[in-house]
Amino acid sequence: MTRFFIKPEDMQPDFFVLTGENAKHAKVLRLKPGEEVLVCDGQGKECICTVSDVSPEQISLVVKKRQESETEALVKASVYMAFPKADKLEHVIQKATELGAYEIIAFPTSRCVSRPDEKSLVKKLERWQKIAASAAEQSGRGRVPQVLVLPSYKAALDRASQADLALLFYENEQSTTLKMALQSSPYKSVSILTGPEGGLEASEVSQAAAAGLKVCTLGKRILRCETAPLCALSAIMYDSGEF
Amino acid sequence: MTRFFIKPEDMQPDFFVLTGENAKHAKVLRLKPGEEVLVCDGQGKECICTVSDVSPEQISLVVKKRQESETEALVKASVYMAFPKADKLEHVIQKATELGAYEIIAFPTSRCVSRPDEKSLVKKLERWQKIAASAAEQSGRGRVPQVLVLPSYKAALDRASQADLALLFYENEQSTTLKMALQSSPYKSVSILTGPEGGLEASEVSQAAAAGLKVCTLGKRILRCETAPLCALSAIMYDSGEF
Repeated sequence: MTRFFIKPEDMQPDFFVLTGENAKHAKVLRLKPGEEVLVCDGQGKECICTVSDVSPEQISLVVKKRQESETEALVKASVYMAFPKADKLEHVIQKATELGAYEIIAFPTSRCVSRPDEKSLVKKLERWQKIAASAAEQSGRGRVPQVLVLPSYKAALDRASQADLALLFYENEQSTTLKMALQSSPYKSVSILTGPEGGLEASEVSQAAAAGLKVCTLGKRILRCETAPLCALSAIMYDSGEF
Repeated sequence: MTRFFIKPEDMQPDFFVLTGENAKHAKVLRLKPGEEVLVCDGQGKECICTVSDVSPEQISLVVKKRQESETEALVKASVYMAFPKADKLEHVIQKATELGAYEIIAFPTSRCVSRPDEKSLVKKLERWQKIAASAAEQSGRGRVPQVLVLPSYKAALDRASQADLALLFYENEQSTTLKMALQSSPYKSVSILTGPEGGLEASEVSQAAAAGLKVCTLGKRILRCETAPLCALSAIMYDSGEF
């Protein structure tokens, strides 16, 4: 079923008139009166609606049924990724959204080569949020994960450690596996933190452990910085019973 | 440790003289006599060697220790992917290699928009194999997964079904999860088959089931054709105890 995302404050009890991007989208899809569509508030609430009228500038919908989104993961997985080079963050935002991430948080570490300056950050965040919205729509999610940027590694550790389970993946860790970490205690929320291209420094790993993060391995092979978070996220979704 | 891949038939008992790409690579890395490197046959056997001499055109190595590669996955996971559009197959080859896939097999299905003609196939296969070799090197694998192309969907099913466990992921399957399939029997080899952008046709899914493949879901969210195999592969590596 086609999904339209609206702002939570624009949720209506009985009918909708969608304009702008949503109306354009409806036109492209050649929606016709009588067809059913889904209107989502991007935060997990949605309405099944019937198209009542389509004009070039707007589409009118009548609410048929309100419901909680059925496609959200039971576990809240937050992806903490050190700023990577080039468009790798965009790749991870798109894929992590498909895979069911709750939110995606970027932050600097000492070996980050690329980090956006404050000036370009507003525009970049807008772009990243759009990528998440588009991936949420395509994958049939009822919630658009928020993309956040934190100013420091310490801020990332402080925030990440608030989850039921906070994990850091480190290529030099050999004993603690992800499975051991996941089986150590039940979890409803999990933070997964990974480093940039050059990896995290040993001192940063110690700092994370001191902040309460569990340091784990993702196996004997060295994963690229954009592969590691998606591998961990897939395994966590599997472990938590999503598929 | 730096890895050099050579052909299995070029494996030597006592010393190596590497030329061509490998010599270039050694030059870029500024290797010096006395340093240790790894020479891999790309099929799981490797030698720890000491650099004895470096010249612009070649690098000489003395074998110190021969061993089986320690970074190969215990489970042989074969990734069967319907030809996708654009460079998505290249993406999957790179990532699946990092994640530990045993081999990657591309094949046509009825909804495949793109399929290489025979003329361009030789060059493409060469390019794909290079991507796998490069990803194997970067991720520290001792084996380069083979990239194969099969001429038909039927050929893919016949080959895939020979594994201990042969799985097909289908967005309309709702009851059988990957976890149920993996827990149904022990497995040392597993085939994972996924469709192209437009998905598999219902008749193709029935055909696969008749050929002995288990039809499974990867959860409630619709994954892109390049995301599904990597998500499944990550989960299988996790399930089989890799991390």
